[in-house]
Amino acid sequence: MTTSNVQIINVAKSLLEHNDLAAALNREHFTQTNVLAVNVIASPGAGKTSLISKTIEILQNKASIGVIEGDIAGSIDTEKVLAAGAQDAVQINTGGNCHLEAGMVKQALERLNLDQLDIIFVENVGNLICPNHWALGEHIKLCLASSAEGSDKPIKYPDIFAASDVIVLNKIDLIEFVDFDRDFFYESVRALNTSAPIFEISCRTGEGLVEWADWILEQHKGL
Amino acid sequence: MTTSNVQIINVAKSLLEHNDLAAALNREHFTQTNVLAVNVIASPGAGKTSLISKTIEILQNKASIGVIEGDIAGSIDTEKVLAAGAQDAVQINTGGNCHLEAGMVKQALERLNLDQLDIIFVENVGNLICPNHWALGEHIKLCLASSAEGSDKPIKYPDIFAASDVIVLNKIDLIEFVDFDRDFFYESVRALNTSAPIFEISCRTGEGLVEWADWILEQHKGL
Repeated sequence: MTTSNVQIINVAKSLLEHNDLAAALNREHFTQTNVLAVNVIASPGAGKTSLISKTIEILQNKASIGVIEGDIAGSIDTEKVLAAGAQDAVQINTGGNCHLEAGMVKQALERLNLDQLDIIFVENVGNLICPNHWALGEHIKLCLASSAEGSDKPIKYPDIFAASDVIVLNKIDLIEFVDFDRDFFYESVRALNTSAPIFEISCRTGEGLVEWADWILEQHKGL
Repeated sequence: MTTSNVQIINVAKSLLEHNDLAAALNREHFTQTNVLAVNVIASPGAGKTSLISKTIEILQNKASIGVIEGDIAGSIDTEKVLAAGAQDAVQINTGGNCHLEAGMVKQALERLNLDQLDIIFVENVGNLICPNHWALGEHIKLCLASSAEGSDKPIKYPDIFAASDVIVLNKIDLIEFVDFDRDFFYESVRALNTSAPIFEISCRTGEGLVEWADWILEQHKGL
């Protein structure tokens, strides 16, 4: 087993270096065309598509938004964000792969007209672990958590909370019905990440979404 | 990139074959000692630890239950299941790995006295994708979903729903507060998996837990 392990570590390292290079090129492409790129990472069902759709609706007269949807299978999320008013959207089916890679995003970018866009949300595959290892060329890494998942997620999945530029806590309308210790959540996040802003939202009730949308718009202006 | 991809596929295949062999030995070990092994797979925050803890409480006079806890970091789940009355529990920290492997379970088994146990729950890392590729030697692969994740999870993560021997839908007390289409969920599951029983439960209210616990106890008797 040892020999095989060493092999896969080396190959994985080589693949990650290759990915980082592709990500750097994507990022240059985004920056040169003045498009803010946001890598949206969360567990399955935390509300990634809902967050993107609601942001598109709120910013419909202020920013032109494109979406790259990463899923193992299906295209229902792309249909949803287009219905919400996305300027353009591309679906990537990873065929079983548990995360997006920079090369996949590069291929998607060939099908998008960046000159017409201000912000691109890249919705990663629903997974709190693997996507964190694969840079896509984003300016902002967003970690989306749901109150229904419980307040211990930062403790149990520390890497993504530590690495994120912004943390969004969704489904706060459910807090009264679940076991969620808000103080514990904030303390755990701050032990890992002292600087990322934390937004509390509910895509269902709309609470907190305007503040979040204002912030992401400011990030685009600051590019 | 092509060459590297071919390399990693070959190495991964070799690792998976190695894992399958280790899993077969684990399974033989479980079966010979008359211990039912259950591989619990779910997204982060779906309620794996709660399901295991509640099952232990309900079966406290009927079955002796051990737990192998897989987490990237921390040991709070092991503390929880021991507090719930687990006969024994071992924590595996994967150090970033997104799934458990058969070799990790083998190491954990060396620290458990199987002769004293009837059922072992192996709580996998919170991830709906990667654990599905790595057999652990379980008799039963359990897919746990939460109503708060939405009813489209079978469509978006088809492999795990197709491969599971039993599907448990948790947090049904939240259905009235979230967008969950029960008919769509069942139709999607049945399109992938015609035979796995589906249990609806709420670890918070206790609904459905006795029926589930009776079923798992029957599976042990049928070993």
